[in-house]
Amino acid sequence: MSVLEEVLAANDAYVAHFGAKSELALPPVRGFAILTCMDARLDPAKYAGLSEGDAHVIRNAGGRASDDAIRSLVISYKLLGTREWFVIHHTDCGMEFFTDDVIRGLLANSLETAALGAEGFYDVGEGPGSAEGAYIDWLTISDRAQAVVDDVARIRRHPLVPARIPVHGYVYDVRTGRLVEIPAATEAGRATS
Amino acid sequence: MSVLEEVLAANDAYVAHFGAKSELALPPVRGFAILTCMDARLDPAKYAGLSEGDAHVIRNAGGRASDDAIRSLVISYKLLGTREWFVIHHTDCGMEFFTDDVIRGLLANSLETAALGAEGFYDVGEGPGSAEGAYIDWLTISDRAQAVVDDVARIRRHPLVPARIPVHGYVYDVRTGRLVEIPAATEAGRATS
Repeated sequence: MSVLEEVLAANDAYVAHFGAKSELALPPVRGFAILTCMDARLDPAKYAGLSEGDAHVIRNAGGRASDDAIRSLVISYKLLGTREWFVIHHTDCGMEFFTDDVIRGLLANSLETAALGAEGFYDVGEGPGSAEGAYIDWLTISDRAQAVVDDVARIRRHPLVPARIPVHGYVYDVRTGRLVEIPAATEAGRATS
Repeated sequence: MSVLEEVLAANDAYVAHFGAKSELALPPVRGFAILTCMDARLDPAKYAGLSEGDAHVIRNAGGRASDDAIRSLVISYKLLGTREWFVIHHTDCGMEFFTDDVIRGLLANSLETAALGAEGFYDVGEGPGSAEGAYIDWLTISDRAQAVVDDVARIRRHPLVPARIPVHGYVYDVRTGRLVEIPAATEAGRATS
């Protein structure tokens, strides 16, 4: 089967046992939101114990507090009532393995997928590439714990984020499944009213 | 228990049975990515049949093809090898129930959570508010199917997205769990090389 056929077959099986989930309302039942990485190894519903309807889940490359993540978080509390947020990065994150210069160079060279060697990513495909990558902030990570602190602090100081919302900072360990607290992030994300 | 205690207790249970997931590598095993909404009722791992390690999952308010979603998708194929993407919006999406003017007005009035009545969202909290909302494009949705077409088309024409990557467009029905294809989006997202 193709990927598309596999996805639709899995969906058929899900629909067959959908049950009472059809009655769920729009606002998250448990009133919180998680911002985490798109990484395939992370399943926030499983690692944090979420059932359908419980919590908002926002995901991007790195789990970063991008402008778009903040747009989503503001909608989450202002219109849908979440009262508590988590920023959850993880070990072995791809965002630690390159810099803006690296990905800009790779994209300028070729749009094909690069390979990862001991020296980092390198291109195996042929051009054409694009200079468009130079105009994007890739939000790469050079210090794992500090990136969590920075993202929590950015959310905390955003003028649209109420001081009453606590923002917790964690790193998910992909070798154990464990959520490990980053105390400096928790401190930076403490509610102040 | 507090939300934080509940999340950490659920995580303890997950860790206790983590097993062979500790061996998963960084690139998605099944080579695809899903862009979908943060809505609490959506669990893409369940509705699309994903195990940990299978696929990238990107989520924001609306499942929109924001600049940040495109940043994530480009990293997904260029560095981590995904070859096929899905854009999956859903029925009863909160993004259909307001406009930029509405949320900007609500935020200017108060940072407290608004209520939803028959006439739309209205503020029940007191100020202070913030004018910062006027500087954000909230990416609201006025036509459900067209928004999927627009997002697929935006991804398709982005200069960093190779023509070889098919982009499928679907709407998830929150009453049934069913993924419903948007044919015009599939057409717009067809691979051309």
